[in-house]
Amino acid sequence: MTKHLISLAAMLALAAPLAAQEEPQGAPSPNEIVAQADAKEWIAIPAEDLLVMTLAPAADGSARKVVIQLMPAPFSQGWVENIRTLARAKWYDNIAVNRVQDNYVVQWGDPNYDNPESEGAAKPLPDGLKVMDESDYAAPARHYRFYGNSGKRVHENRSNPHLTMAYLFGNYAGYNGFSAGWPVAGTNSAVPSEKRRSIDSAYDYSRPDSVWPVHCYGMVGVGRNYSPDTGSGAELYTVIGHAPRHLDRNIALVGRIVEGMEHLSSLPRGTGALGFYATGEEAKRTPILSVRVASDLPAGERPAFEYLSTEGETFVRYAEARANRRDPFFIVPAGGADICNIPVPIRRAGE
Amino acid sequence: MTKHLISLAAMLALAAPLAAQEEPQGAPSPNEIVAQADAKEWIAIPAEDLLVMTLAPAADGSARKVVIQLMPAPFSQGWVENIRTLARAKWYDNIAVNRVQDNYVVQWGDPNYDNPESEGAAKPLPDGLKVMDESDYAAPARHYRFYGNSGKRVHENRSNPHLTMAYLFGNYAGYNGFSAGWPVAGTNSAVPSEKRRSIDSAYDYSRPDSVWPVHCYGMVGVGRNYSPDTGSGAELYTVIGHAPRHLDRNIALVGRIVEGMEHLSSLPRGTGALGFYATGEEAKRTPILSVRVASDLPAGERPAFEYLSTEGETFVRYAEARANRRDPFFIVPAGGADICNIPVPIRRAGE
Repeated sequence: MTKHLISLAAMLALAAPLAAQEEPQGAPSPNEIVAQADAKEWIAIPAEDLLVMTLAPAADGSARKVVIQLMPAPFSQGWVENIRTLARAKWYDNIAVNRVQDNYVVQWGDPNYDNPESEGAAKPLPDGLKVMDESDYAAPARHYRFYGNSGKRVHENRSNPHLTMAYLFGNYAGYNGFSAGWPVAGTNSAVPSEKRRSIDSAYDYSRPDSVWPVHCYGMVGVGRNYSPDTGSGAELYTVIGHAPRHLDRNIALVGRIVEGMEHLSSLPRGTGALGFYATGEEAKRTPILSVRVASDLPAGERPAFEYLSTEGETFVRYAEARANRRDPFFIVPAGGADICNIPVPIRRAGE
Repeated sequence: MTKHLISLAAMLALAAPLAAQEEPQGAPSPNEIVAQADAKEWIAIPAEDLLVMTLAPAADGSARKVVIQLMPAPFSQGWVENIRTLARAKWYDNIAVNRVQDNYVVQWGDPNYDNPESEGAAKPLPDGLKVMDESDYAAPARHYRFYGNSGKRVHENRSNPHLTMAYLFGNYAGYNGFSAGWPVAGTNSAVPSEKRRSIDSAYDYSRPDSVWPVHCYGMVGVGRNYSPDTGSGAELYTVIGHAPRHLDRNIALVGRIVEGMEHLSSLPRGTGALGFYATGEEAKRTPILSVRVASDLPAGERPAFEYLSTEGETFVRYAEARANRRDPFFIVPAGGADICNIPVPIRRAGE
């Protein structure tokens, strides 16, 4: 096998021994399963839900663009509207990445807003921003499709492929799963709180009644002050480490990075408190030149992305394969996968 | 509160609103609990178990040192011996970081070993390296202390603080917990395999009989070719994203980064297959100047680290607080925490 013919299976392996030996045969990898999805399983992301954030060029002069997908209803819509308002007011232009904390978050905003390393005056916010309530961190789950686990259901519904997934997704809440392309968790308020928090509780309720998005790698959230402040959307962060699920329902999640994550995750870590760039290292702050809603860009500059439906058969096969790796590199399938280890496939439209 | 008096609670918050408002009162944060630990709960790491890896200086001329703790028995000792052999043969000197894959791993070794982007000849390995078996990815659990969950036990032993932790640690295996300062998982072979892989299985065995270390952020493992190859220790990687637990029992873990992780996690991502630096970007490879076993260094250059006992009362309180954040920033405690969200506290000795 020549070196440029790298299979998707090898792409996911930890070593790529293509020169040394033939690749063994095996089951399709998760990415190979996704590559076989029918075109109709790919769902276009509205241009109104995409933000294009342009950072200052890198030291070698190369361009750095980050594309963010904003979250659709029912989640966090007040903050999402604020973010569009801030982008359209060009408020984000000429702010900066001020904080990079290893295995936690990259945060950008006004360098003078709540920055323990700075004494300057904060940039005034535009009029018309909504003030959101802490109750908006979660959404009622009525009429909400939910594909995931609820404890016991897996054992009672083995013939239903959606339910045989139930054991995969972790135990941070009574329910963990996917809906409309996003990783979500939930509770059922009828479940006694003691049982709601245990890994092997005996309850069996068919649906959550409250759901919320979860803090996986690359998710974007809203920085805030102490409760009851909920943040405006002017300070944003993305997760660059192991999923900090303790932030779920404590901060608003508003989206995720769909392209250019490496421009944020590889930034130098700050040495100040909380990973802020300390006095004397302000030069490490990465300037943000502009943030635009994609639908406001000329058609030729407008990025187009699509995600793999989390309600389709391909996603079920993909998630199952992520949980039970049988492609050639693997010898022991895990038998399960954390919800944040099943990233929803997203690609440029038409690829 | 002045800006330089940043509390440990605020250190863990996502925003640091110290200028804007008084910090509210709250329960001690996980780090505050650790800070109160008795000196005898801190256990010295033997100098023989520490590696000092010196990278080429950064672009701004600053030094870059990474300290790795090698794993003690019963885990991966053949590979760990190989790594000491390779370090003492100075084999690692003048190799490089060749691969940086976002949300996955940073890998270092011989740029010409199994690199799809390179055609050069591989560097010969020293004599005397052990060849390990796949069965060595896990260890028998006899006489092995284990602090963690085994499904049902939490409900039957609420009076025992060690067992009330049981629901915290995730569901990648029948057992997830900590032992001798390391995150570990396990199975009990007497449990039917179907039940072994389910989140809410009804079995109740008091101990695992097979245990293995888990792929949390910052853990160090051994790159390998396809099975039955198990790698020698000449190619090493560390995790820079969400814990890739599907690699557990598929690759040997041999240690973890205890200092200088940011020098690896912030490296530019490779654009080649698997995050290797592609043809034309070889200049992005970070040279490794030397790797030394700390016990071989002069006393004045020898780093000294200690970890918080995972068998002590402070660790129980720390883990419980990580799972149920009640310090001022938080409004809804999660009620659980993934094993990889409870990093074992490690510090320079005497701090």
